Amino acid sequence: MLETELEQHRNRLRELLGDSRVSWEPSQLQAHKRDTWFLNVYRAVHGRLTSVPLAVVFPETTEHVQEVVRYALAHRLPVVPYGGGSGVCGAIEPSARAIVLDMRRMARIVEINEHALYVRVEAGKMGESLEEELRAAGFTSGHFPQSIALSTVGGWLNTRAAGQYSTRYGNIEDLVLGFNVVLPDGRLLCFPPRVRWASGPDVRQLFLGAEGTLGIVTEATLKIFPLPESALFQSFSFPNMATGLEAIRQIVRNGWRPAVVRLYDAVESARHFPQASSGSDCLLLLISEGPGALTAAEAAATAGVCAGLGGESRGIEPVQRWLEERNRVPTFESFIDKGVVVDTIEVSATWDRVARLYDQVVAALQRVPGVLVASGHSSHSYPQGTNIYFTFAARPFSPELGEQTYLDCWRAAMEATLQAGGSVVHHHGIGRVRKAWLGHELGEALELLRALKQALDPAEILNPGTLLPER
Amino acid sequence: MLETELEQHRNRLRELLGDSRVSWEPSQLQAHKRDTWFLNVYRAVHGRLTSVPLAVVFPETTEHVQEVVRYALAHRLPVVPYGGGSGVCGAIEPSARAIVLDMRRMARIVEINEHALYVRVEAGKMGESLEEELRAAGFTSGHFPQSIALSTVGGWLNTRAAGQYSTRYGNIEDLVLGFNVVLPDGRLLCFPPRVRWASGPDVRQLFLGAEGTLGIVTEATLKIFPLPESALFQSFSFPNMATGLEAIRQIVRNGWRPAVVRLYDAVESARHFPQASSGSDCLLLLISEGPGALTAAEAAATAGVCAGLGGESRGIEPVQRWLEERNRVPTFESFIDKGVVVDTIEVSATWDRVARLYDQVVAALQRVPGVLVASGHSSHSYPQGTNIYFTFAARPFSPELGEQTYLDCWRAAMEATLQAGGSVVHHHGIGRVRKAWLGHELGEALELLRALKQALDPAEILNPGTLLPER
Repeated sequence: MLETELEQHRNRLRELLGDSRVSWEPSQLQAHKRDTWFLNVYRAVHGRLTSVPLAVVFPETTEHVQEVVRYALAHRLPVVPYGGGSGVCGAIEPSARAIVLDMRRMARIVEINEHALYVRVEAGKMGESLEEELRAAGFTSGHFPQSIALSTVGGWLNTRAAGQYSTRYGNIEDLVLGFNVVLPDGRLLCFPPRVRWASGPDVRQLFLGAEGTLGIVTEATLKIFPLPESALFQSFSFPNMATGLEAIRQIVRNGWRPAVVRLYDAVESARHFPQASSGSDCLLLLISEGPGALTAAEAAATAGVCAGLGGESRGIEPVQRWLEERNRVPTFESFIDKGVVVDTIEVSATWDRVARLYDQVVAALQRVPGVLVASGHSSHSYPQGTNIYFTFAARPFSPELGEQTYLDCWRAAMEATLQAGGSVVHHHGIGRVRKAWLGHELGEALELLRALKQALDPAEILNPGTLLPER
Repeated sequence: MLETELEQHRNRLRELLGDSRVSWEPSQLQAHKRDTWFLNVYRAVHGRLTSVPLAVVFPETTEHVQEVVRYALAHRLPVVPYGGGSGVCGAIEPSARAIVLDMRRMARIVEINEHALYVRVEAGKMGESLEEELRAAGFTSGHFPQSIALSTVGGWLNTRAAGQYSTRYGNIEDLVLGFNVVLPDGRLLCFPPRVRWASGPDVRQLFLGAEGTLGIVTEATLKIFPLPESALFQSFSFPNMATGLEAIRQIVRNGWRPAVVRLYDAVESARHFPQASSGSDCLLLLISEGPGALTAAEAAATAGVCAGLGGESRGIEPVQRWLEERNRVPTFESFIDKGVVVDTIEVSATWDRVARLYDQVVAALQRVPGVLVASGHSSHSYPQGTNIYFTFAARPFSPELGEQTYLDCWRAAMEATLQAGGSVVHHHGIGRVRKAWLGHELGEALELLRALKQALDPAEILNPGTLLPER
């Protein structure tokens, strides 16, 4: 883009929205050039992520969003919505022509309906702030992604987020009752809260997980829950992952829904719970929430299942420790400084496949040259199966091999997951890191998704480059 | 269509599929010219539903379905999928050029996965037959629409069905893990079972509730549940609907999920439960299912809520009676014979609106000239609200006014629902009877739905005339 054209767009955006809502300060452009995908952090640290967007816009109303989208469409400029920037799959990588929409000034709670149990909130609201305000009113969102201090409501919808308490409260698609979304032509769709969608195809689902490629979510209506009457903590030790997974399977199969169900393999048990772990056992954490009579019955039943499989109680301390530490993670930069590449990879499978999947993905990661450690835990369980959340760290044999080693690890994990019959994604989204595998995941439905994109956004202005693989 | 052209299509279909799979016997054409929408039953009884389809095809494989769709596309013939014919909204009304696909020969159970709790079943499987086979293996589908003896798995997906036990087990969109669907161009999409959809927009949702307008479902993977360890029955009497609704609200708000939660107004309580009803009170039926410790805790807690609101126990007998009688309904013909028009209309609303909605819809129906009775019950509850399932009967002032009286009742109920801020549909679908109100329900999203239809089925061969209103 010519400098003069670039300047024209910037000035025109200021005329449209006001000076205070449009910035091209270098620090702002730098701050919005990526999310928290490891590879782009790595590239940035090494000076290899140099492209910055045209401008950052800070809309304060839905109309601001509509104006930007209409302007972008008229001039064929990409529009990239930006929430907390905490995404880990590379959905945010604006080109030099792109307008980034930083949604965080749209952070009002519009309504808390205490009788019908929902909150209407603008899309730029940060998760922790939302939860604090709900708690002050006696409620919870039930949605606790690890990123809760770093992510926005809009980001949750765009990535199909899952929270740590999902086994009782549900994932974001279970929690969303409605939302407002600006389409690629600037029109606004408003989906009011419904107790159940029954009026034909649930077209709302097109926007959940679309990573900003089909619309810009400006407001959401989410379920809320009265703060639970009681919460009971338990932990159990199992000799291996397969036995721990079988315990979870029996618990959910029997109709129990502990809010938190987390099973760590031996490596992660020793890492996170050194006092409770023998070094070779696998730790299962359980939190039951709800009415006192329910949690008492659930805790007794889950303890019975664990005991029946040889699980040994490790008390409440590991759960307390997890609650304190759960959202503290070292920065990617701290690993990069030590010459180490790392990442987390979440996948899922049905119960008949998941124990084998765990073994095969860990083995595949361990075979990648340079890998130091590969481990995993299950954190979101269902009657049909569970997810495994893998973590790997590798020291490339030479600095030039850093990106290659990282990508080799991803390829190994994705291919082993597919071979084991799993799904290559559980809740981080597709972004850029997974898009090469979206076709394996969707099959012919990938063409359907392309057709929907073509129907809604024929000019391809909304967040190009994420989600959909190149042809 | 010229007679010779009609003959050519029939003969060509037989060449493609074999003689035994294509029929134009008058009895078959008559049997497939409508579903169980009251108005088309009424028209048929009065000799005013004369159009019959071109042919009825009985596919036995997915490939048969693909061949028919490709043939239809090549010749621009409508294709109408037909399950049990139990739909009550008029989704089935094939034109004289249409090919009806009777799916009921595709009725195999492909797999019962007892470990990962799912069943793969062909779309033409009848509900009762599926449930019987699952029970023989120790499982249940958890899905009990009143039509279970008359409806197919494919029909459930196409209408977004809800079962009588939905408050614990979920509606069909919660129960479906995957499916196969033939697109309007003959391609097959296969969605394998996933514990959670996390790979971008959930494109599967486009086909749930599409009433055959976007694809032909040929196989589905549904959740199954081990038969519950225990079931506890309770019933309570409340002085009015508002108090009974408040009891349900508190029960689900507190985190309890009884499988069955049904509240009948005074008219229906007296009609269905004459021994338990005083004639002016409203009866609440509850069934708790699950592990014994869970149902015991749930039954005690729900009894406590009811007592706290002045509810009086009516014991287990009304529940037993409901279980025996629940799927027995008089035929529409029996009313038509008496010169009476009748129907049921299910809508939903959030808790802050539903008591007023109940009052206003009943009042609106009672104001329609000729109405004899208007009543309602709540049968599917959620933390955010519930449905109301209205029933009306009217005696038109003259036989010529039959259709008009019927349509006036529908209009009164739909408009009162919208005025009360409710959703005009809960689980019967849109069909032809509701399509005039789909725009009120969807707003701008109606144009989105039209764009999706255009993208997937530009020739408009799949079940034209249902769901989408005329422009």
